[in-house]
Amino acid sequence: MEEVFGVLPGKGFRNQYEDGWQVLHPGKKMVGRAFTVQFMPLRPDIDNVVNSKNRAAGGRGMNNQVAIDMLQPGDVLVVDLFGKKDGGTIVGDNLFYYVMKATKGGGMVIDGAIRDLEGIAAMDMPGYFRSSHPSFITNVTLTGINIPIRVGNVTVMPGDLVVGDREGIYFIPPQFAQEIMDKADEVHVHDEWTRKKFDEGKYKSSDIYSSPRDPELRKEYQEYLKKRLEEIRKK
Amino acid sequence: MEEVFGVLPGKGFRNQYEDGWQVLHPGKKMVGRAFTVQFMPLRPDIDNVVNSKNRAAGGRGMNNQVAIDMLQPGDVLVVDLFGKKDGGTIVGDNLFYYVMKATKGGGMVIDGAIRDLEGIAAMDMPGYFRSSHPSFITNVTLTGINIPIRVGNVTVMPGDLVVGDREGIYFIPPQFAQEIMDKADEVHVHDEWTRKKFDEGKYKSSDIYSSPRDPELRKEYQEYLKKRLEEIRKK
Amino acid sequence: MEEVFGVLPGKGFRNQYEDGWQVLHPGKKMVGRAFTVQFMPLRPDIDNVVNSKNRAAGGRGMNNQVAIDMLQPGDVLVVDLFGKKDGGTIVGDNLFYYVMKATKGGGMVIDGAIRDLEGIAAMDMPGYFRSSHPSFITNVTLTGINIPIRVGNVTVMPGDLVVGDREGIYFIPPQFAQEIMDKADEVHVHDEWTRKKFDEGKYKSSDIYSSPRDPELRKEYQEYLKKRLEEIRKK
Amino acid sequence: MEEVFGVLPGKGFRNQYEDGWQVLHPGKKMVGRAFTVQFMPLRPDIDNVVNSKNRAAGGRGMNNQVAIDMLQPGDVLVVDLFGKKDGGTIVGDNLFYYVMKATKGGGMVIDGAIRDLEGIAAMDMPGYFRSSHPSFITNVTLTGINIPIRVGNVTVMPGDLVVGDREGIYFIPPQFAQEIMDKADEVHVHDEWTRKKFDEGKYKSSDIYSSPRDPELRKEYQEYLKKRLEEIRKK
Amino acid sequence: MEEVFGVLPGKGFRNQYEDGWQVLHPGKKMVGRAFTVQFMPLRPDIDNVVNSKNRAAGGRGMNNQVAIDMLQPGDVLVVDLFGKKDGGTIVGDNLFYYVMKATKGGGMVIDGAIRDLEGIAAMDMPGYFRSSHPSFITNVTLTGINIPIRVGNVTVMPGDLVVGDREGIYFIPPQFAQEIMDKADEVHVHDEWTRKKFDEGKYKSSDIYSSPRDPELRKEYQEYLKKRLEEIRKK
Amino acid sequence: MEEVFGVLPGKGFRNQYEDGWQVLHPGKKMVGRAFTVQFMPLRPDIDNVVNSKNRAAGGRGMNNQVAIDMLQPGDVLVVDLFGKKDGGTIVGDNLFYYVMKATKGGGMVIDGAIRDLEGIAAMDMPGYFRSSHPSFITNVTLTGINIPIRVGNVTVMPGDLVVGDREGIYFIPPQFAQEIMDKADEVHVHDEWTRKKFDEGKYKSSDIYSSPRDPELRKEYQEYLKKRLEEIRKK
Repeated sequence: MEEVFGVLPGKGFRNQYEDGWQVLHPGKKMVGRAFTVQFMPLRPDIDNVVNSKNRAAGGRGMNNQVAIDMLQPGDVLVVDLFGKKDGGTIVGDNLFYYVMKATKGGGMVIDGAIRDLEGIAAMDMPGYFRSSHPSFITNVTLTGINIPIRVGNVTVMPGDLVVGDREGIYFIPPQFAQEIMDKADEVHVHDEWTRKKFDEGKYKSSDIYSSPRDPELRKEYQEYLKKRLEEIRKK
Repeated sequence: MEEVFGVLPGKGFRNQYEDGWQVLHPGKKMVGRAFTVQFMPLRPDIDNVVNSKNRAAGGRGMNNQVAIDMLQPGDVLVVDLFGKKDGGTIVGDNLFYYVMKATKGGGMVIDGAIRDLEGIAAMDMPGYFRSSHPSFITNVTLTGINIPIRVGNVTVMPGDLVVGDREGIYFIPPQFAQEIMDKADEVHVHDEWTRKKFDEGKYKSSDIYSSPRDPELRKEYQEYLKKRLEEIRKK
Repeated sequence: MEEVFGVLPGKGFRNQYEDGWQVLHPGKKMVGRAFTVQFMPLRPDIDNVVNSKNRAAGGRGMNNQVAIDMLQPGDVLVVDLFGKKDGGTIVGDNLFYYVMKATKGGGMVIDGAIRDLEGIAAMDMPGYFRSSHPSFITNVTLTGINIPIRVGNVTVMPGDLVVGDREGIYFIPPQFAQEIMDKADEVHVHDEWTRKKFDEGKYKSSDIYSSPRDPELRKEYQEYLKKRLEEIRKK
Repeated sequence: MEEVFGVLPGKGFRNQYEDGWQVLHPGKKMVGRAFTVQFMPLRPDIDNVVNSKNRAAGGRGMNNQVAIDMLQPGDVLVVDLFGKKDGGTIVGDNLFYYVMKATKGGGMVIDGAIRDLEGIAAMDMPGYFRSSHPSFITNVTLTGINIPIRVGNVTVMPGDLVVGDREGIYFIPPQFAQEIMDKADEVHVHDEWTRKKFDEGKYKSSDIYSSPRDPELRKEYQEYLKKRLEEIRKK
Repeated sequence: MEEVFGVLPGKGFRNQYEDGWQVLHPGKKMVGRAFTVQFMPLRPDIDNVVNSKNRAAGGRGMNNQVAIDMLQPGDVLVVDLFGKKDGGTIVGDNLFYYVMKATKGGGMVIDGAIRDLEGIAAMDMPGYFRSSHPSFITNVTLTGINIPIRVGNVTVMPGDLVVGDREGIYFIPPQFAQEIMDKADEVHVHDEWTRKKFDEGKYKSSDIYSSPRDPELRKEYQEYLKKRLEEIRKK
Repeated sequence: MEEVFGVLPGKGFRNQYEDGWQVLHPGKKMVGRAFTVQFMPLRPDIDNVVNSKNRAAGGRGMNNQVAIDMLQPGDVLVVDLFGKKDGGTIVGDNLFYYVMKATKGGGMVIDGAIRDLEGIAAMDMPGYFRSSHPSFITNVTLTGINIPIRVGNVTVMPGDLVVGDREGIYFIPPQFAQEIMDKADEVHVHDEWTRKKFDEGKYKSSDIYSSPRDPELRKEYQEYLKKRLEEIRKK
């Protein structure tokens, strides 16, 4: 996440990180494109309008599956269910399985709950959610698909690059994706060199990190960085 | 709140009540029409679009005062600031004063914070908020005025009748306002009669409440109710 | 509460105090005899048995009013509703009024909720509860009247002396009531003398409190205590 | 848990599920018969009575081991220690080991704490508890064995079928055990068929789930269900 | 607090405000000089050293009264008791009374608890604390008097100007006291003029606040400010 | 932890245990010597003094690396960052790596946060912290190295023996280390014998635990204990 933190705040994007998730597979990184869905607490006057339109168009009513059926490979399903637990369960194991197939393992980020945690735990797709509960989804209205939504302290836009690990999730505006990937290469080489130096056992941490104090070492690092970046980018 | 609870859930409106507020004047009831405002966490790409439009139209940028300047007498300002405290302060004492003047004391419900609690505490308008903080409002974008917003577990529509007391707040769809006011009269008479009977000291609570067990008493109550409702509604 | 704390732990009664209450009238002390009621989460197999018995005996089912109708002057209604809020509302304003009449203003301690806080706030009886909510009591079964119940970290016995102030509530086994009242007199005189000495402005706090350091002063205090206790107990 | 949720609420049993546990072995399912134990905060007047009886009958006083020594194979030890952490430790590693032996690996559900988490983590029996702490059990009185107890929002009866997985725990009245097992078979076949269809990659989720939209598919599913249930139940 | 917030962060002092207090007298402002005291959890090896020194110097051991006896008029007692409740009670009503006399009503800020809330509530000195409890102070060691201490997210220095109202507390380094008082005058005049304009009913909030949009009005305000500041400072 | 709990409270050391940690490697025990570091919220007046001294002595300012560079093999880095998350990140993966090398895998206990959890999770040193966050350490001042610090409810002294497992952490004054290790041997043998007896299946738990009820068994145990301790201590 370090490489993202090194770029976004400097561009004025200070609210793109959210944590506090239950992480389904802590060792599994998530990378994909945000497909956003918004629910709000049900009130019949709004719900009727929303559902009438969908039914007039031949649907079975606006529900979680209307959104899920639009998912494409590479999507990460990002859902604002305002932290709802009982009745805020976007999928159980069958729909989780469907999302995994439809997105080719993209992933999901649910500011709400999932059902059938036991069954889902056996499936190989990244999942981030607030809680799990045996209830079905209920008492909510689907109010938007692929609109800007709020997930905790982040405004998520459809198309954001969603990157998650066991620490938390970054929602990256796509215009910064390339810069962050370049930065990531640099961070990678910096880590590599820094630890190599630490392995030598001759240096205090501040001799080397965050940048080498000695001019010779600084030069050595610059050359190492240049060479390694060339190697990495050749691939 | 009893009279609202007696009507709305029966119509399928089960999510119209929210509590957990810091109540500015516990003894002061709030009644007004919802004027809704939505903020989201700032991200510059959205913020620029929103502000450019406003500036192109001659404004000084979209901010809390753009919304506040639209308030009319009888309005209650209802704001989704997603519970933000530091930097989530919709008004300080000067703007609170302005809102009081503009709405003729309507009130405000802030799912966020206010500033200058000490100064505001001396002003005579109902106020409900999550917290107070000395910071100015910052790091948010105004994303909607008079759109449906979420306040805790309620979807609030502009125009909802907002009724607050020290217990919490009901957001009442206007189509039920008359029915609830009629119900309120009935509840009022029922309370009156019930306590009169309790004052007599002859009855156990279950002889009288929630409805009289004895047929004679039931008839007495029905007549009392009819007479009193006539008196009340004559006014 | 000081006088209770000075007695009970020394007798091995270390779990008789509970706080964390919403206090209805912070300036109003509560003193009375515990009338205990226990509810548990409803399950139909138990609920049917409980209600059948009551109905066979001519009742309308076991509910909160069955217990409330048994209250006597001087009782404090102490209810285990396991902190339940929505549906855990033991009384609204009408039944609160009834309890006030029946107990002659004894009071109530609800590990659960009340309804109609606005109406109840105007009534002159001490009340301690965890929260308030507009719902009716529901989804619970009355499982005991005047049995030992648990209220937070206290095991309350029917007949305990219940003493509450804005700090919290002590449930005092009646066998210690006299000793605590005697202790209270002593504490009262000690406070009186200590502050008189502090008013003189000649002493550091540790010269006087908790006991006078100087033998002369100690003697002075002992005589003052003896004299004042005689006066107090003469009344 | 899905299969239980599909049955119990429909029978009026809406309060049989509890979560928020620290789960000892997330991958290990727990199934057994509830053996219930209740503790309350110690007060010497009650404690003396309880212990005198037990000692008069030749015991060493009523404590956790009196209950533990009654466990039988297939039991799950379910204990109300009202969430107590410090001093609310029902077992350490030695008694956990004993319970494992005595119940043949049945399991335990502690609304309280355990001691020696490090040692217990190596033992192969399901365990659910609120916390762990190095203290010994203290400052509580054993007030009931195999009586109805409250665990969070559930009233647990001795003899309930206790089913736990990494999501949470269902306490199932035994009269519904058969129906739930039948339902479980059906759910299992439904999952099987649904995923098979999703694997084909031709369908949107709503074509198949929760029930097939197309009459042909519906028929196909009904036949598949019938055939598979026969196979399963033959075993 | 507005006037402090307008000065300190601009000087790099961003961590001088702390809230989350139980405020004894919400209507009563607190202003005084910080007298700091630090406690840490007791461990006998440290405690013995601390007390031996004090006793060797003729004291009765280092305890809360050693610090309290050093208080002077104008002091505000600021204590780090690391939020401790049970046993973290720095004063009861007698010592609160002494502090009130010794500081001439300066006040106290306790990151911990007080005892005898009922008695203290009747005394006319500002008090801020986290909780109240009937226990005596215990299981802590006094580790510093008039040293830098941490209170929540603030590093408090002895001699800081402590300013509290119902919103929270600012700890102001004394070098900024004059600037803040000047700023406060300006804020006061600005509020005065702003509300006068709002009272006229001709302006939208953004015409006037935070600064007048119209050049004429801006000039009017500048002249008003100048005149009023002169009047105020003449006094 | 049992063996520590069996010794320290009896010596009056009741505040040496702290839990509530995020444990990096639950299966990995931590044992080492406390190297303590204290941070406080930054205020420029203190920060300037601290840094000037360090710079005058040729340093680059007092920061986390000044402390980290002093670590020796066998040290456990124990840091008071008062639970700070955003900006309270003592190390990222590079410095974690350095600490691992410098202490020979000693470990770290951070009452604050770490950065780069994903990278750190792959490194083989025990780590205990409150949270993780992508930010750099900021807005704090280093105020002490190897001084007594407070970590939750424990006063930690440099040189304390730090012992951690998945349950929590004990900070053991070194004077008790030998006694606890002896006790640990005894506990180990007691566990061994107890489980052997339980394996025999002939005993109730209370026949054997915590001490054998039967005199014969008690003798058997004493002999077993003696023999096994001799074996263990011969090694």
